[in-house]
Amino acid sequence: MKTEAPLGVFDSGVGGLTVVQAIRRLMPQEDIIYLGDTARVPYGGKSPDTIRRFSGEISTFLQNRGVKAIVVACNTASAHALKMLQEEMPLPVFGVIRPGVETALEATRNGRIGIIGTTGTIRSQAYQKELTAARPELQLYAEATPLLVPLVEENWLDRPASRLVVEEYLSPLLREKIDTLVLACTHYPLLKPLLQQVAGEGIRLVDSAAATALHLQRHLQAHGLARTKDNEAGVRIFLTDMPIQFSQMAERFLQEKPDSIEIVSL
Amino acid sequence: MKTEAPLGVFDSGVGGLTVVQAIRRLMPQEDIIYLGDTARVPYGGKSPDTIRRFSGEISTFLQNRGVKAIVVACNTASAHALKMLQEEMPLPVFGVIRPGVETALEATRNGRIGIIGTTGTIRSQAYQKELTAARPELQLYAEATPLLVPLVEENWLDRPASRLVVEEYLSPLLREKIDTLVLACTHYPLLKPLLQQVAGEGIRLVDSAAATALHLQRHLQAHGLARTKDNEAGVRIFLTDMPIQFSQMAERFLQEKPDSIEIVSL
Repeated sequence: MKTEAPLGVFDSGVGGLTVVQAIRRLMPQEDIIYLGDTARVPYGGKSPDTIRRFSGEISTFLQNRGVKAIVVACNTASAHALKMLQEEMPLPVFGVIRPGVETALEATRNGRIGIIGTTGTIRSQAYQKELTAARPELQLYAEATPLLVPLVEENWLDRPASRLVVEEYLSPLLREKIDTLVLACTHYPLLKPLLQQVAGEGIRLVDSAAATALHLQRHLQAHGLARTKDNEAGVRIFLTDMPIQFSQMAERFLQEKPDSIEIVSL
Repeated sequence: MKTEAPLGVFDSGVGGLTVVQAIRRLMPQEDIIYLGDTARVPYGGKSPDTIRRFSGEISTFLQNRGVKAIVVACNTASAHALKMLQEEMPLPVFGVIRPGVETALEATRNGRIGIIGTTGTIRSQAYQKELTAARPELQLYAEATPLLVPLVEENWLDRPASRLVVEEYLSPLLREKIDTLVLACTHYPLLKPLLQQVAGEGIRLVDSAAATALHLQRHLQAHGLARTKDNEAGVRIFLTDMPIQFSQMAERFLQEKPDSIEIVSL
């Protein structure tokens, strides 16, 4: 019965839908319930205690909807609330940082890894700490790239202005001869073509949305939780507030139309 | 005694400090108390009722600090809460929309006015309604320009990427032969040099921060509330949360160092 249950995914806003999209691509037979805490977005500037409280409320909401596992598709919540949720929730909980870190460790050949993310994520050192804990000899180059989220939300994915912004942000990392670039923000998968063009083909982009989906798939299969039937499945979105133009943005992030978008209070 | 009291200014975040800077330039003898509701920023996506509740709480805070007048240095709060505050508060309350509208009406020669602001401000139609109410024959061209706030917050005021972004945003307005451009966001005064270069010298930029300061000065003088003594005055900043790198950003917006930055709960 548990196997037939939906997966729960949450983020502070719309960004986590890239993780949903990556899950859908790998496991189209899984139903997904997504919670975007749009009334309280952004989490980046809020205190760790507040992030844990919000994450606990959302996880309880998802649990009450009968999900079989929870994916914290938000870098800030993964950094501050994942451990607490894993201890307190009676079901498996996954974050986006560990899968991104593991993929980067497999990808690098020269041990020089770049990390781009929001100012909050880069300052939290969440990726730097996990990478260094795994391999202390790594050379890490982290760069806060706060203009990329609004570029994605504006859908300026391949404009000349966007290319200049990306060139400006990546140039210090490229000078350091990184061979791997971690996209430490759930918005960035939409900029992958542009980032790859500017970085050059020699650099491996680590998309933590895709890495998280793969990690989740392995876990579900190993624990007999993966749905195997070839049935129709879909995505239901719950939001705590309705942002302007949300449904168009959701379709761009998801690359499909969600089954429903509903407003809830937690 | 009231004359000696400070002015109160508030915004959802750091942007309203451009209004403080404009007031300081015109009236350096006035003390200013600023409240930035950084714990609840941004206001743009929130409901009008919520905006009114937040604005009421902040105005009570400023009133308790003994201010002689309140400036709502936030377009969203000006659009939704100004009327309520003017009715309920026992002291004069000013917004940023009316002064910008009046300046634009004086500035235009050909009756073709452009308006740029955040998506929330442009969608609220606040400027469009006031301009049309004053002169129904005006031709208005409004453009949401959501990338400009992050460009200002990144301090990318004259980079090639910023110029491309501005060119892209202004080109539809310039094609319509506007002769006046209203900067309907308190962040935009920092981009004035770049906006003027891209728009060309023939276009009058209406900076609602400067317009609001002038409007306030006239009111204070007309009502005997202006401080005339040539004394030292300063700016005290109160915040509801401390954002990353706030003090550097505040100095760029203010063009001076504030006397103090304190955290308060409302």
